[in-house]
Amino acid sequence: MQPWNDLQQIRSRAPLVHNITNYVVMNSTANALLALGASPVMAHAADEVDEMVAIADALVINIGTLSPPWVESMLMAARAARRKGIPIVLDPVGSGATRLRTTTALRLLEESPPSIIRGNASEIRSLVLSEQGTKGVDSTHSSEESVDAARSLARRCRCVVSVSGETDVIVDSDSVIRVHNGHPMMTRVTGLGCTATAVTGAFAAVNPSALHAAAHAMMVVGIAGEIAAERSAGPGSLQVNFLDALCALTEADITRCLRADLS
Amino acid sequence: MQPWNDLQQIRSRAPLVHNITNYVVMNSTANALLALGASPVMAHAADEVDEMVAIADALVINIGTLSPPWVESMLMAARAARRKGIPIVLDPVGSGATRLRTTTALRLLEESPPSIIRGNASEIRSLVLSEQGTKGVDSTHSSEESVDAARSLARRCRCVVSVSGETDVIVDSDSVIRVHNGHPMMTRVTGLGCTATAVTGAFAAVNPSALHAAAHAMMVVGIAGEIAAERSAGPGSLQVNFLDALCALTEADITRCLRADLS
Amino acid sequence: MQPWNDLQQIRSRAPLVHNITNYVVMNSTANALLALGASPVMAHAADEVDEMVAIADALVINIGTLSPPWVESMLMAARAARRKGIPIVLDPVGSGATRLRTTTALRLLEESPPSIIRGNASEIRSLVLSEQGTKGVDSTHSSEESVDAARSLARRCRCVVSVSGETDVIVDSDSVIRVHNGHPMMTRVTGLGCTATAVTGAFAAVNPSALHAAAHAMMVVGIAGEIAAERSAGPGSLQVNFLDALCALTEADITRCLRADLS
Repeated sequence: MQPWNDLQQIRSRAPLVHNITNYVVMNSTANALLALGASPVMAHAADEVDEMVAIADALVINIGTLSPPWVESMLMAARAARRKGIPIVLDPVGSGATRLRTTTALRLLEESPPSIIRGNASEIRSLVLSEQGTKGVDSTHSSEESVDAARSLARRCRCVVSVSGETDVIVDSDSVIRVHNGHPMMTRVTGLGCTATAVTGAFAAVNPSALHAAAHAMMVVGIAGEIAAERSAGPGSLQVNFLDALCALTEADITRCLRADLS
Repeated sequence: MQPWNDLQQIRSRAPLVHNITNYVVMNSTANALLALGASPVMAHAADEVDEMVAIADALVINIGTLSPPWVESMLMAARAARRKGIPIVLDPVGSGATRLRTTTALRLLEESPPSIIRGNASEIRSLVLSEQGTKGVDSTHSSEESVDAARSLARRCRCVVSVSGETDVIVDSDSVIRVHNGHPMMTRVTGLGCTATAVTGAFAAVNPSALHAAAHAMMVVGIAGEIAAERSAGPGSLQVNFLDALCALTEADITRCLRADLS
Repeated sequence: MQPWNDLQQIRSRAPLVHNITNYVVMNSTANALLALGASPVMAHAADEVDEMVAIADALVINIGTLSPPWVESMLMAARAARRKGIPIVLDPVGSGATRLRTTTALRLLEESPPSIIRGNASEIRSLVLSEQGTKGVDSTHSSEESVDAARSLARRCRCVVSVSGETDVIVDSDSVIRVHNGHPMMTRVTGLGCTATAVTGAFAAVNPSALHAAAHAMMVVGIAGEIAAERSAGPGSLQVNFLDALCALTEADITRCLRADLS
């Protein structure tokens, strides 16, 4: 449960994280990966995803702004990542809001199961309970009331499920890690959930335990968000200070701020 | 002419604003809607726009980076929004610069008239006068010299036309509201016009008067821009401080800064 | 070798720079062009690129997130720009990482040679040496060890080649200009290379010497980056302060900071 070693690994090895993600967050997630010490690349053409996966250390798939060619590329890239054995992190953005999103997330889960599914509570529930309670891309449930759904999904897909919320809940078949870091102002910045997903990809590239990688990513994002919020007058400056904090994060920051428990 | 009530409504109800917008501004308009208190979602696939409109409180269409599949989705979404009766706000970005943009804006006007058209003077003139004077996406006319064109368009489409410029001019068939808020530095930040359009969508979601919603949005964006400009060394910090100011905006800020008149 | 005259020209004439660029950097490069004093427009549809080129003063093509329709539009726009005689700046982002990128860059070079190719060392080498050493979009070579490759490419394509790195190396058939400005923290902000490319387009629009335009752009970007880095706690604030510095840049700043030599 100590993310410092992973962070050092990311900073020294600069893993290449291949993102097929939504238009809204491409810039902010690339910046977060760079601030963290990883090397981001975005590539979505069917003609090149296999080659990009071949040089990548992790694949991040985020379905926030889908269209049919992107869905095909996501499926291709996921197959290539499975064959190569690099971790896949899936963010089912807006699953439950439209059939296209729910269906695409479910196809990805079935055809090329990810190592880690990272979403908000409504998205995770939509994949297990066939609920359609999502308000666009915002959750209408808490992570805590979705622990059973998360575990059920983790067991079905033999993967880790990381549910963001006031408390982040990270589960596999047996364990539950709760991360209490973060700040309410973070919900006012677009794509910080997607950023957590991309950062999870970087941690999964250096830590063979998907459970620990997913938990460490949420800790680091939450702690950087807390440090940033202390210095921020609102969501505009929070976004800026978050990147600064992520880049400057020390072992002492983590030790001082970390609030998490395992059950 | 008091935007405070609308702003309170947005903050308490968090209306879902469905955006089909250009790649350049997706991140910044999503952040502006979140800072305002609304809930943004971006979705452009023909396979999902109907379902997204079905849960949305307003639809914002912005033609800043068109391609044929996006045009089709815009037309589909606009039809769904008309059927459902939620407000549509159209930003004809670059209309007059290319036939694709002008034609697409005119098709949207004819097939599914919006509640509010929000653009710069050159864009609005291109829809009435068949002028092609736009310099890319920048206006070559003032809003004041385009009042007649705006009113003519408002009458033809039975909608509100909101023309941004040094003075913002908002017209329907009979009335003209002029908003004198804003700051010249705002023209050096990309997409603040598109942000005004997205914010107009949020106001239209809570205020049944399209005229008032459009005017209130320009007031709030202009006032937040003024407050931000006071604290900013340039356009980089303006963009950040604008989001902070929008999120923190109080009734006292509005009362102190508002400069508008109705004729 | 004095970029001040060009910068004054850009600020007074506000050249229209047509960008067909990648999704990740559209917002940040548009903001950089606005901060510089230029007028950016993004347009990628085959249906409109010819008309947009017809009103543009420079064309910037960046292959950072390709797909087949975008490749066709890039080729069309480049042909239109050649016919019209406006400068073309090509950024072969990730060339060498996948065949799609390398092939697309080479097609553009052969069918409609640009005035200026601006990339990192690995990208430039991939176009001459058929090397595939790129790590995603990050370079694995220094610019200095790539001077011969750059000159070879410049001679083959009869153009200027601008290689970014710790030292920026700008070459044509005969000359080499080295620019020593910039700051290491700039590598932690996504798209500052792409920003340098867009800024190069603005300089090429006002300076008929492609060699000088390319060098002046790297000087101005490097100097603004240095000034910004002095005020920045990390990459988040650097991105913001860079835009402020670019907008406020004075002749005195340039005289004080410029470190470059011609051989």
